[in-house]
Amino acid sequence: MAKSLITGGAGFIGSHVARHCLAAGHQVIVLDDLSGGFEDHIPAGATFIKGSITDEQLISKLFAEHKFDYVYHLAAYAAEGLSHFIRRFNYNNNLIGSVNLINESVKHDVKCFVFTSSIAVYGPGQVPMTEDMVPTPEDPYGVSKYAVELDLKAAHEMFGLNYVVFRPHNVYGENQNIGDKYRNVIGIFMNQIMQNLPMTIFGDGTQTRAFSYIDDVAIPIAKCVDVKEAYNEVFNIGADKPYTINELVDVVSKHLDAKPNVKHLQARKEVLHAYSSHEKSHRVFKTGDPVTLDAGIGKMAAWAKKVGSRASQEFGNIEINKNLPEGWTKKS
Amino acid sequence: MAKSLITGGAGFIGSHVARHCLAAGHQVIVLDDLSGGFEDHIPAGATFIKGSITDEQLISKLFAEHKFDYVYHLAAYAAEGLSHFIRRFNYNNNLIGSVNLINESVKHDVKCFVFTSSIAVYGPGQVPMTEDMVPTPEDPYGVSKYAVELDLKAAHEMFGLNYVVFRPHNVYGENQNIGDKYRNVIGIFMNQIMQNLPMTIFGDGTQTRAFSYIDDVAIPIAKCVDVKEAYNEVFNIGADKPYTINELVDVVSKHLDAKPNVKHLQARKEVLHAYSSHEKSHRVFKTGDPVTLDAGIGKMAAWAKKVGSRASQEFGNIEINKNLPEGWTKKS
Ligand SMILES: NC(=O)c1ccc[n+]([C@@H]2O[C@H](COP(=O)([O-])OP(=O)(O)OC[C@H]3O[C@@H](n4cnc5c(N)ncnc54)[C@H](O)[C@@H]3O)[C@@H](O)[C@H]2O)c1
Ligand SMILES: NC(=O)c1ccc[n+]([C@@H]2O[C@H](COP(=O)([O-])OP(=O)(O)OC[C@H]3O[C@@H](n4cnc5c(N)ncnc54)[C@H](O)[C@@H]3O)[C@@H](O)[C@H]2O)c1
Repeated sequence: MAKSLITGGAGFIGSHVARHCLAAGHQVIVLDDLSGGFEDHIPAGATFIKGSITDEQLISKLFAEHKFDYVYHLAAYAAEGLSHFIRRFNYNNNLIGSVNLINESVKHDVKCFVFTSSIAVYGPGQVPMTEDMVPTPEDPYGVSKYAVELDLKAAHEMFGLNYVVFRPHNVYGENQNIGDKYRNVIGIFMNQIMQNLPMTIFGDGTQTRAFSYIDDVAIPIAKCVDVKEAYNEVFNIGADKPYTINELVDVVSKHLDAKPNVKHLQARKEVLHAYSSHEKSHRVFKTGDPVTLDAGIGKMAAWAKKVGSRASQEFGNIEINKNLPEGWTKKS
Repeated sequence: MAKSLITGGAGFIGSHVARHCLAAGHQVIVLDDLSGGFEDHIPAGATFIKGSITDEQLISKLFAEHKFDYVYHLAAYAAEGLSHFIRRFNYNNNLIGSVNLINESVKHDVKCFVFTSSIAVYGPGQVPMTEDMVPTPEDPYGVSKYAVELDLKAAHEMFGLNYVVFRPHNVYGENQNIGDKYRNVIGIFMNQIMQNLPMTIFGDGTQTRAFSYIDDVAIPIAKCVDVKEAYNEVFNIGADKPYTINELVDVVSKHLDAKPNVKHLQARKEVLHAYSSHEKSHRVFKTGDPVTLDAGIGKMAAWAKKVGSRASQEFGNIEINKNLPEGWTKKS
């Protein structure tokens, strides 16, 4: 029986990956510090260890104790836009934490290290983004993800550690932390609607993203360790079709039975149009057609109605307050 | 009077940069933890503060106290080959430490942040390396340097922080730590000769590097803050002409009055041929012809004879022992 460590397994994507790994017969250990995840999202059958990937003693103890076959590393703080203002936290959590896991995976001969990077690595290039482009990330979150990708490649070449890197594209679905006001526009909109607040949009809402339903992402991630062709490769993953934020407003409103009510905030620094080619992941993982936005939002809205709105948490330790976008400053 | 912070100012390049900044009339504060530098290398006239760039409290106190105009950030542990085996230390010292300084430079409106990156960012590309190539570093040291470069660019775009990035090429000269057995082949050779030990070469010695004399590097670094054209640009810096390690053996032996005595070790993973184009730095900094290898080694050898050999220090905290090159394991 394969033994798998899933970091961030109490989080959105991680909890689904854990579920699919269990279904495939893995023994699953979830490591999560619950900074952004929820214990009740961890699927039954997984063993939960509360702790941080930045705790090197804990990590080294865990690897010595269990002899993991696979590491699925999803723990991160993924607030891309906020990362400019929390640089140190970002690199510490997302890079140093990852390096602790890479070190131990090398030492303990882990068979495959699965890492969720992000389309944030691409930076302001052309669309569609393809895996053969050389990334030039332009925010600390993207830089930390790209640094981990490069470090994994170096670890593969020096020590033979196998890896699979995924670059998911704006994922949404059940178990998403809709209380995080710094990321995931769909969760933010649903939370705002359920609190009778206007949906806030940075700029005019014409920026586009190819929102991806969780199943289209979590299933290939879970099964990649059995696909040898995927080893030491990088994959875009998610939906193909980009929508404007304004189109999204309509779909979300419809499924939450609300009239679209929007408040525009000042535009922030972000990539205007982003969509990826998924030709490579379709080919290697034989994935079918992605779930449509309408269908996916429908499922997520049904879940959101059931669980209700969530109080927005402030990120406690902003390092730089200069130029912090409207709505992100304290008491807003 | 310009007030400048020089991190790593007790080190090799940093002590020279400090000297040139003092000569140019700056008030100089040196911050160094003496992990690789020496207090007596800090030029008279500089104020010395012993401490680490990873100590965020200290850094934030320093910036609040002094209102630095310029930050010259040279502190790093630069053992490229060893970085595979000390990943966490590498990213913590070289990236998180840098980010502490970037954060405070943004908060306190530093006028220019000067950073010594490395040709290690290029990875295994074509030669000559030019600044317009998109880097793909292949070891943790190069990854950490590149991450800092990208982070500086992001900080410039988000906050207007100006920077100048230098990618020096194998620098040698007076004040080099010849007791560091993990880096700087010229220092290692001199130290070995003075201890009547054979010079150790990884592989057959046909790999080439364009060894650069310190003045060709430290002078442009020191003066770049006065060259507005250099702001927010990246510069290769150093000598143009590559030599094989075998040729180097002869030049070093000659100047230390020794017969070439060589021991070949197993080849390690490294770029075989490396030299950079310096067209851009010649143009912008109006630098003259680089010091020849013969002349530069002559000066360094005269200094080395005066100060004598230095006991080699072990790096205390190797994280991964697997595949550690011959000569780098404990008790060797
Ligand atoms: N959701 C997306 O659209 C998206 C897109 C691209 C990449 N990703 C990546 O996918 C991964 C999962 O993202 P998500 O959307 O599920 O986010 P999430 O916040 O729901 O999940 C992350 C989980 O990691 C945990 N965590 C954070 N820091 C930790 C630490 N130091 N130690 C232990 N646990 C820690 C959190 O508590 C949370 O449960 C992340 O690596 C993220 O960068 C997500
Ligand atoms: N020497 C080269 O050939 C070369 C080539 C490319 C880039 N560089 C870069 O130039 C810079 C200077 O290198 P060098 O050759 O003079 O090395 P060096 O070791 O002589 O100098 C580095 C100095 O930084 C100090 N230091 C290290 N970690 C520190 C920390 N956490 N806090 C405070 N001080 C710390 C050391 O004590 C040392 O005095 C480094 O950033 C290095 O990466 C050097």
